[in-house]
Amino acid sequence: MEHANILKSWPEAAPRLIAVAAGREAADLVIRGGRLVNVHTREVLDGWQVAVAEGRFAYVGPDAGHCIGPQTQVIEAEGRYLIPGLCDAHMHIESGMLTPAEFAAAVIPHGTTTMFTDPHEIANVLGLAGVRMMHDEAALQPINIFTQMPSCAPSAPGLETTGHEITPADVAEAMTWPGIIGLGEMMNFPGVIGADPKMLAEIGATQAAGKTVGGHYASPDLGPAFAAYAAGGPADDHEGTCEADAIARVRLGMAAMMRLGSAWYDVKSQITAVTEKGLDPRGFILCTDDCHSGTLVHEGHMNRVLRHAIDCGADPLVALQMCTINTATHFGLARELGSIAPGRRADLILTSDLRTLPIEQVIARGRIVATDGRLMVDCPHYDWPAHVRATVRLGRQLTAPDFEIVAPAGARRVTARVIGVLENQAPTRALSAEMEVTDGCVGPDPARDIAQIALVERHRATGKVTNGLVSGFGYRGRMAMASTVAHDSHHMIVVGTDCALMAAAANRLGETGGGITVWKDGAEIAHVALPIAGLMSDAPAAQVARDAARMVAAMAECGCTLNNAYMQHSLLALVVIPELRISDLGLVDVTRFELTDLFA
Amino acid sequence: MEHANILKSWPEAAPRLIAVAAGREAADLVIRGGRLVNVHTREVLDGWQVAVAEGRFAYVGPDAGHCIGPQTQVIEAEGRYLIPGLCDAHMHIESGMLTPAEFAAAVIPHGTTTMFTDPHEIANVLGLAGVRMMHDEAALQPINIFTQMPSCAPSAPGLETTGHEITPADVAEAMTWPGIIGLGEMMNFPGVIGADPKMLAEIGATQAAGKTVGGHYASPDLGPAFAAYAAGGPADDHEGTCEADAIARVRLGMAAMMRLGSAWYDVKSQITAVTEKGLDPRGFILCTDDCHSGTLVHEGHMNRVLRHAIDCGADPLVALQMCTINTATHFGLARELGSIAPGRRADLILTSDLRTLPIEQVIARGRIVATDGRLMVDCPHYDWPAHVRATVRLGRQLTAPDFEIVAPAGARRVTARVIGVLENQAPTRALSAEMEVTDGCVGPDPARDIAQIALVERHRATGKVTNGLVSGFGYRGRMAMASTVAHDSHHMIVVGTDCALMAAAANRLGETGGGITVWKDGAEIAHVALPIAGLMSDAPAAQVARDAARMVAAMAECGCTLNNAYMQHSLLALVVIPELRISDLGLVDVTRFELTDLFA
Repeated sequence: MEHANILKSWPEAAPRLIAVAAGREAADLVIRGGRLVNVHTREVLDGWQVAVAEGRFAYVGPDAGHCIGPQTQVIEAEGRYLIPGLCDAHMHIESGMLTPAEFAAAVIPHGTTTMFTDPHEIANVLGLAGVRMMHDEAALQPINIFTQMPSCAPSAPGLETTGHEITPADVAEAMTWPGIIGLGEMMNFPGVIGADPKMLAEIGATQAAGKTVGGHYASPDLGPAFAAYAAGGPADDHEGTCEADAIARVRLGMAAMMRLGSAWYDVKSQITAVTEKGLDPRGFILCTDDCHSGTLVHEGHMNRVLRHAIDCGADPLVALQMCTINTATHFGLARELGSIAPGRRADLILTSDLRTLPIEQVIARGRIVATDGRLMVDCPHYDWPAHVRATVRLGRQLTAPDFEIVAPAGARRVTARVIGVLENQAPTRALSAEMEVTDGCVGPDPARDIAQIALVERHRATGKVTNGLVSGFGYRGRMAMASTVAHDSHHMIVVGTDCALMAAAANRLGETGGGITVWKDGAEIAHVALPIAGLMSDAPAAQVARDAARMVAAMAECGCTLNNAYMQHSLLALVVIPELRISDLGLVDVTRFELTDLFA
Repeated sequence: MEHANILKSWPEAAPRLIAVAAGREAADLVIRGGRLVNVHTREVLDGWQVAVAEGRFAYVGPDAGHCIGPQTQVIEAEGRYLIPGLCDAHMHIESGMLTPAEFAAAVIPHGTTTMFTDPHEIANVLGLAGVRMMHDEAALQPINIFTQMPSCAPSAPGLETTGHEITPADVAEAMTWPGIIGLGEMMNFPGVIGADPKMLAEIGATQAAGKTVGGHYASPDLGPAFAAYAAGGPADDHEGTCEADAIARVRLGMAAMMRLGSAWYDVKSQITAVTEKGLDPRGFILCTDDCHSGTLVHEGHMNRVLRHAIDCGADPLVALQMCTINTATHFGLARELGSIAPGRRADLILTSDLRTLPIEQVIARGRIVATDGRLMVDCPHYDWPAHVRATVRLGRQLTAPDFEIVAPAGARRVTARVIGVLENQAPTRALSAEMEVTDGCVGPDPARDIAQIALVERHRATGKVTNGLVSGFGYRGRMAMASTVAHDSHHMIVVGTDCALMAAAANRLGETGGGITVWKDGAEIAHVALPIAGLMSDAPAAQVARDAARMVAAMAECGCTLNNAYMQHSLLALVVIPELRISDLGLVDVTRFELTDLFA
């Protein structure tokens, strides 16, 4: 099974490619009768044909008749367009709660044939070993999945404890692996601007290996701070949200990666740099960053992004370059993929319309991998070791008292800090509330939309529970919800209105190896099993999407009215985004990057 | 001296670059008050400023005031344009008869800051060791000189004997050298099309090293043969001569390198692919291929090519991309040079007009290297070993009888093959002539414009002289001319009307270590000393240009009326271009690629 997806290198394949192109040997596959979209010249070539051998394009030109032998499979394109397979320039597989295999299975029918993936989440749980497993499952797939070595685990050193840390030595080692394409998003932009030796060592190891340093500059400041970040080496950035962001990045020689994810909408606001300002489009690239399973199942993947870019006014061929040759060039792969040209991996799509983009047939490495939305190949699973399915280590059975918020001795009334969730925004607000003390404890206050939140340590079985308060979910009645997807350190976040149910929810995930569980009135009403590192299912996307949809519905049944309700839950421990978060070390003031007390 | 030109890598320089960009440390150099040409976005940014440190751009943006300290050198651009230093994408330094140092000294005032050089000529004389010496002298220069490892020495195995041969093992070794950027032009295109294992091994070693394979497809056939060549791996080609050639190359994912050399005029005929057909310009690149010293001294270098491309109708910014960012991207160097952007080598030109392109100031690696056409830095010479100055090994003193053309025994009249030189063309014609036999020998016949030609073996001191006949120079009276520049095997070509003078000319070059000598009526009337490998002078370009001009004038004094007269002489042993040539192995029929007899 694994060996079916091993591809000969261009030099290894060259004798056969040459022989086919010259007409001395027969191709494995010929496609004729189509209209070839050439992303090098940016033109449509009516009637151009392709011949494939060894999984690579051997001949591309007006007539492949001389490449056809008795064994050659011939596809009649019947006037359809041949476009290169689509590339996702930056994304996290874990966001789909799927393994690389199931993610591939979900996106292949949408025409994605190449992904640049940053397994940042598993790196926080399992370190370099986890990255390697993702890399190894990626290598088994019938499409191209390159790995960006995660750069920032922990995201906020000193403010949280991750399962494992990534060091410059880890980065240097990873650069020697065959599927590593560069460094994952360098989120520690203050560190780069401050010339932090550890961050610069990771960047340097990547540059020394001739690979691409991914950027992440999440700030609107385009002055000297941004210039300093660019001087540090990141070669792209997907955190831009407006036209000025995109232009600033490309002017400084970085690629502007414009994303349309499940909850990111940054294409429309940036692509005007090309469509209206008329800048050279070569430095603009499309990506998804994060896609939930539901998006993949119901809406699409890179075909959704490409269609959207065209809807935003981009010339279809220019938009196509933004997710094919521009991407390949950015990662140093323009002679390996990203276009329909000799020697390149034979990845292409047959589509009857360049604007609506129906993905009618997908060919990857010369094999038909999807037809009319149906997957036609196996996406082999890696044999994940048992310890990867046992990463939720609570150390003991948790009980209701673990979740009690104990007030200062003798206090009858306290002023408490409350994490304020903001609709449709990633930042939270640091609220404060006067709370009654009952039996020495502070409880939830559904009337004021204040619930309890707990960060349960789950990597080292310390049994530690950090308690706090959160507002904004709208929970009513007796409920609890727990998740081991808890960016970025991925401990366990429990939110609830009842200590006993919170304990039950936490214990449930301790038993299942992780995932998401919602409890109401004493019983579990939804469960998403994510046994791999507590982050991913190895079930197909359709099932995960169904389970996740049920989970979101369960949140609503408990009173939650937020959009992206689950994402809001899972980001409450993301101690790099202001203003107030929770970690295993306590409550974190992310305006000052320091720990703070629950009670003022 | 050497160490002045060693540059820190981006990671090594990063802490300082960041500190300067952020305003914490002062820059070495700031340029302000100019208009910056951004080749990433293809726009002119009025007022943009740059700050340089460690020879690299640290800050590029609207205001570098925060980068200026007491020690910072400040250049006031006074409204002039800042454009990236120009890149020559493919060229042979030996064509200038100059060493890398003197070539650099000649082109720096013209704004060339990067060259991709293929030391193919010295490879034929000295093999890998000669390539290494060129590479090592290149490394000493204040500009960027990358070496393309020669791929085809000998050019025509079996039809000539070179001083040394290049093997796939040599190529693999060279790929580990710091200044090697790829494989030099793969001229053996029939070999690639035929899947010759030696050629494919050289290409494979280059691809495996992640480097760029240079192409050379010198055929008008754009059918399956060209497709097969492209399938073999060459990533660019500079042999195109018409629009269809350029389009065919870019459509197949190769770069179309359009050249304007001293005797190449292939830009105007190809650039219409962009200016009229509107193709995406990113795959089009400018180069010179071959420039004589006189061109460098009197006309320019890449500034001449860029100006010409603009005169041909290209948008100045698009044309500039063709010799900056396009070139850098092609060679995988877009994060190292080719644009004015953070981290890149600080190579730029100040010019007051984007069309006429006066090269007013040239900065390379942050240093002012030329001002108003004057070189401002040293270009250090390599210490060439003595044996490199003693490559003309005749083995003995040659005498007039060595140059006598002995007819078949007893013949009184013979039909002889004559190499026919064609005005303004590289190919020759295979002529035949009825010749009288006098004293057992065939002599020249100035009345019919037939001179003698001899190929004198000079690499292995065999003392062998191969004699033949040549027509087209128009020589009259007693004369002889000898040259150790004798493409591609670089033995010695002697043409003359007098055997004694031919011997004298040959012996003269044997004494001087090589070059070109012209003799008339018993005395030498011109001499160009090329002691390094018999190919290059280590004198400055101005002197070499003067000597070469005198030599060409001397050819005219002997009756020669050809344009490019010297080039015609030096190509008579180029046994890869039809129809009839001479080599150390005999007369070569280059229509059938086999040796042939002088007498029919």
